[in-house]
Amino acid sequence: MRSLGRKSIQASLQPRDLMAEKRLKGVWTAQVVTLFPEAFPGTLGLSLTGRALKDGLWQLETVPLREFGDGKHRNVDDTPAGGGAGMVLRPDVMASALDAAQSRLPGAPLLYLSPRGKPFTQARARALAEGPGMTLICGRFEGLDQRVIDAYEVEEVSLGDFVLTGGEIAAQALIDASVRLIPRVLGNQESVEEESFSHGLLEHPQYTKPAVWNGRAIPEILLSGHHAKITDWQRVQAERLTKERRPDLWRAYLRAQNRDPDEDQEL
Amino acid sequence: MRSLGRKSIQASLQPRDLMAEKRLKGVWTAQVVTLFPEAFPGTLGLSLTGRALKDGLWQLETVPLREFGDGKHRNVDDTPAGGGAGMVLRPDVMASALDAAQSRLPGAPLLYLSPRGKPFTQARARALAEGPGMTLICGRFEGLDQRVIDAYEVEEVSLGDFVLTGGEIAAQALIDASVRLIPRVLGNQESVEEESFSHGLLEHPQYTKPAVWNGRAIPEILLSGHHAKITDWQRVQAERLTKERRPDLWRAYLRAQNRDPDEDQEL
Repeated sequence: MRSLGRKSIQASLQPRDLMAEKRLKGVWTAQVVTLFPEAFPGTLGLSLTGRALKDGLWQLETVPLREFGDGKHRNVDDTPAGGGAGMVLRPDVMASALDAAQSRLPGAPLLYLSPRGKPFTQARARALAEGPGMTLICGRFEGLDQRVIDAYEVEEVSLGDFVLTGGEIAAQALIDASVRLIPRVLGNQESVEEESFSHGLLEHPQYTKPAVWNGRAIPEILLSGHHAKITDWQRVQAERLTKERRPDLWRAYLRAQNRDPDEDQEL
Repeated sequence: MRSLGRKSIQASLQPRDLMAEKRLKGVWTAQVVTLFPEAFPGTLGLSLTGRALKDGLWQLETVPLREFGDGKHRNVDDTPAGGGAGMVLRPDVMASALDAAQSRLPGAPLLYLSPRGKPFTQARARALAEGPGMTLICGRFEGLDQRVIDAYEVEEVSLGDFVLTGGEIAAQALIDASVRLIPRVLGNQESVEEESFSHGLLEHPQYTKPAVWNGRAIPEILLSGHHAKITDWQRVQAERLTKERRPDLWRAYLRAQNRDPDEDQEL
């Protein structure tokens, strides 16, 4: 397992069993079971998540699946039962990797990135950020043997209704969405409170200088200095956008406010 | 702009204007406008998408937003009009970057990764794979000035109902989902035809050797050799999973088959 972040400078100088000792206790941890450990930290090592990783506000470890492979060639996959294209990750190999992962991060949710899973949401990101961390399984090829999903009660989580080459990019999205909600990662907590989904609405449009660009002016109200009116305008815009673009979110928002989903109010 | 892929070995030896000349004509191209060009190719440089990038089946270029920044400090953002937390990307700076991007890849869809956008789907990935490529805008901070979205008729695309630190990981997901559908990238076209969403259903469970693992056997039918029965079982499983987990997809599937969405058939 490779540690990234605050301890990474010493890590390469230490045998692997000592690396384990160096894990920061009580720090939010993402563990990633993957055939491509070199994909991490990737984008997570940049910008705000990268700074927070260096500052020890969270930590990231990969569990390289290949190391748990079978035989001289470290085989991890085999042909699908019943025929068909592609390869399926072997249950015995995955089980060894999951045992190692779970012994290192007991009690953390065990998630498998899969288009068959439950769609990932901001509410889930919030819940994950409040927990001890998570162990993520990245699939490749035709995915995991169903028996290992059943035996380990793995929860399947989907990024959306599309298919990726592997789970690594989806894992980075889940980690990014969760890590940025850990206190002190973003710096300004306010921006989390105003953004999309925080009130069940899409975010209102944003503007910045210059006041007139390319013949287009910033809406006058935003330059008025009337804070109450500005907030009101922003809420109306957020409601309008949500109603236009995402009738599903709009209905849920009205229900949460005990308003009639069929009301046909002009926004 | 930095080219990655087949020409990348020469790229660092060439001045930038020569790099541009070296772009492969008629090859599917992803252009990414970003403050973090070093995030690319990231995971896209590994595995099947990475091999296809080296083989020139697609190409990837970054448009580093910072280079279009204003003044000595290359400023790209400013405070939001009307107040509030965070910073907004300036319309004039983004417009310069978009002009450069569009002159290099005219006619390609211009997409902005944003939770306010239309949810990305497998159907959209298929359409993008069939086109000339795409120009993706990665937001950071509080996002883009609305005027540049309007002026350039930028299409907002969402990965899902969650918020990321920036658009880079989402851009990689969109690129991965699209590139793997370009002919010859995956190797075995069959696996694309069987996977989740290809028939409007989630994919059936997969199994591989050993026949019995941890006291759990592969379903007998899969080892029977009866191809018609196996296909039938897999379809029933795919329908069952979709009905259980994604009633929204299930209803759409039934409608597409002219079946009654309210039928309460036992699967």
